[in-house]
Amino acid sequence: MPKITAIALLKAAPGAEDKVRAQALSLVEPSRAEPGNISYTAYMNPEEPGSWIVFEEWADRAAFEAHLASPHLTAALAAGPDLLAGPPAEHVFEAGA
Amino acid sequence: MPKITAIALLKAAPGAEDKVRAQALSLVEPSRAEPGNISYTAYMNPEEPGSWIVFEEWADRAAFEAHLASPHLTAALAAGPDLLAGPPAEHVFEAGA
Repeated sequence: MPKITAIALLKAAPGAEDKVRAQALSLVEPSRAEPGNISYTAYMNPEEPGSWIVFEEWADRAAFEAHLASPHLTAALAAGPDLLAGPPAEHVFEAGA
Repeated sequence: MPKITAIALLKAAPGAEDKVRAQALSLVEPSRAEPGNISYTAYMNPEEPGSWIVFEEWADRAAFEAHLASPHLTAALAAGPDLLAGPPAEHVFEAGA
């Protein structure tokens, strides 16, 4: 199965920038520890502190889907609606597709 | 022609973090002004200040290739080797491919 590259773009609701920062960074270690993870990095837009991009690479779709169902991501997504200005924009690409 | 999503991952050489920051941010406005640009945003890894991701969306490959030949990007890439720890990692995706 082809490698998966996933990109999530997050925008904090006004006043929630610090909480979104904490959430974004708290997902890094547990996600990197998941089977099939190749890379997982959270980046912030220095010109817009509430604006984040999470760049992820997974060995295959099964690993990516296990991540989507993981306890740490599920908890973060549950907290999302209150902290984010809108739903995250997701871009999921298959290598070589 | 399909939309292009391009992602560049940059890592500053030790000591060049501020210069790479200035370069990355200096490309934002001129790139957004280019014909066919949909979005162009530079993000920094707050846990690794020299580590950047540039997320770009272009209307089509022609617009993306014109960007690659643009004076501002050409100048930045020329300065790159001294400022970066290694060549940027590029990921270029075609929508719907």
